Amino acid sequence: MIFVNETTVRVRYAETDQMGFVYYGNYAQYYEVGRVSAMRELGISYKEMEEKGIIMPLASMSTKFIKPAHYDDLLTIKTYVREMPKVRMIFDYEIYNPNGELINVGETVLVFLDPIRMKPCGAPSWFMDIINEKLPEHFEK
Amino acid sequence: MIFVNETTVRVRYAETDQMGFVYYGNYAQYYEVGRVSAMRELGISYKEMEEKGIIMPLASMSTKFIKPAHYDDLLTIKTYVREMPKVRMIFDYEIYNPNGELINVGETVLVFLDPIRMKPCGAPSWFMDIINEKLPEHFEK
Amino acid sequence: MIFVNETTVRVRYAETDQMGFVYYGNYAQYYEVGRVSAMRELGISYKEMEEKGIIMPLASMSTKFIKPAHYDDLLTIKTYVREMPKVRMIFDYEIYNPNGELINVGETVLVFLDPIRMKPCGAPSWFMDIINEKLPEHFEK
Amino acid sequence: MIFVNETTVRVRYAETDQMGFVYYGNYAQYYEVGRVSAMRELGISYKEMEEKGIIMPLASMSTKFIKPAHYDDLLTIKTYVREMPKVRMIFDYEIYNPNGELINVGETVLVFLDPIRMKPCGAPSWFMDIINEKLPEHFEK
Repeated sequence: MIFVNETTVRVRYAETDQMGFVYYGNYAQYYEVGRVSAMRELGISYKEMEEKGIIMPLASMSTKFIKPAHYDDLLTIKTYVREMPKVRMIFDYEIYNPNGELINVGETVLVFLDPIRMKPCGAPSWFMDIINEKLPEHFEK
Repeated sequence: MIFVNETTVRVRYAETDQMGFVYYGNYAQYYEVGRVSAMRELGISYKEMEEKGIIMPLASMSTKFIKPAHYDDLLTIKTYVREMPKVRMIFDYEIYNPNGELINVGETVLVFLDPIRMKPCGAPSWFMDIINEKLPEHFEK
Repeated sequence: MIFVNETTVRVRYAETDQMGFVYYGNYAQYYEVGRVSAMRELGISYKEMEEKGIIMPLASMSTKFIKPAHYDDLLTIKTYVREMPKVRMIFDYEIYNPNGELINVGETVLVFLDPIRMKPCGAPSWFMDIINEKLPEHFEK
Repeated sequence: MIFVNETTVRVRYAETDQMGFVYYGNYAQYYEVGRVSAMRELGISYKEMEEKGIIMPLASMSTKFIKPAHYDDLLTIKTYVREMPKVRMIFDYEIYNPNGELINVGETVLVFLDPIRMKPCGAPSWFMDIINEKLPEHFEK
């Protein structure tokens, strides 16, 4: 019932701050990396989504910082999609450090938006077709 | 019972993304601007805090994106401290666009940390003294 | 013969790195702050420029890092326009720390671009009119 | 006589701006990615360098923006070291888009610095040993 994607990201010097940790605002970029990787595995690039006339801005985000991430760490991002997208699409994240310790969990809620009318338009049918075809084992219809 | 600080930030081109909005990850920086301004008004710069041997990393953050912010907008950030800091300090934020519309709300929870031992150390007494002296009208002791 | 604008920017925690200095890539944002402030003083917001159908991407940038900038520093940015814009517009920058020391110098070259055709279009006449009217003392015609 | 490293970076949404291109200030991060990859291939991680008590801040940077980079592009970064490091170390960069077109060239000059005394200290002998041992074919001694 759950789709999960795994990818990695290496911490850039630019992403650290003078505490010597990753600046808390930069986890949003790691979530983006995880989310885009998950969508690619689902069979659709987010770039394509925009080219087909739909943007997916954020409605909300929450984050829990458990342990710091450090410069040059190769972090593992696990991105979960736990329910069928409808008006919105929810991604959950877990980030692990190179020792396999869970250092961050987060959730983002995105909406499908028609950028011309600036109105929510729901998940497009072609996107749902892809999900339904490729992932019957992941979601209940 | 509530302390509130108001400051402004102008949206940089760097902070927009190709949607034409402020990238969602950049609100964390606006929260930082609000938080630091609030602490300065409370009588302590965060820089001083670190110079006195205490760092304040984030424990958690939540954000609700209500309307997009645009390039060159002069945003107003209202930062609230609703309870006395103890082991942790909680800041709430409201961000308004130039039309006075509320576009974003958020909350961050920070902990007082001894960076040498990497252990929570609670709000230092000199910090509590400043708060108690300057803000009797804001907090119940 | 020279137009100069002065503005300030306070260093954000997000902009530092684990060296305890401002990350070198973030000076480009300070240049942007200076450049936009200079254009505003010249009588045109960059936002308006885009609304009138012209974008100004960068052609080149150079930077010399003289001394580090630190967290919470209130930096002074001096932005110079030394010659009349034509196909391109050149901005020079000097950044000073709170002690008045010159810590960074830079130059950016921007081009006037028609974003539909993706072709250089030169400085628009209405922009030149503004410059010529407001700044006869700054530039030779 | 020349050492060259090749690596890739995928453009994040966070790195674009409302022009729909990568924001010019973000190329510095791509240079960092290239530089760190080059040092790793040379046999030393930059992280290790700092752990051994040497930091490498930037002295200067120059960039030429030839064509824009776009969201989701898998960019190729070629990083060149053309001369033996002494007091400073120079890295050159070429960035190619997925069509193989050269879109950006840059150069950064870094200095070896003792962060305690904040004085240039030159390339450490252990670093030169690694370079001399591993790369006789690349540099003249």
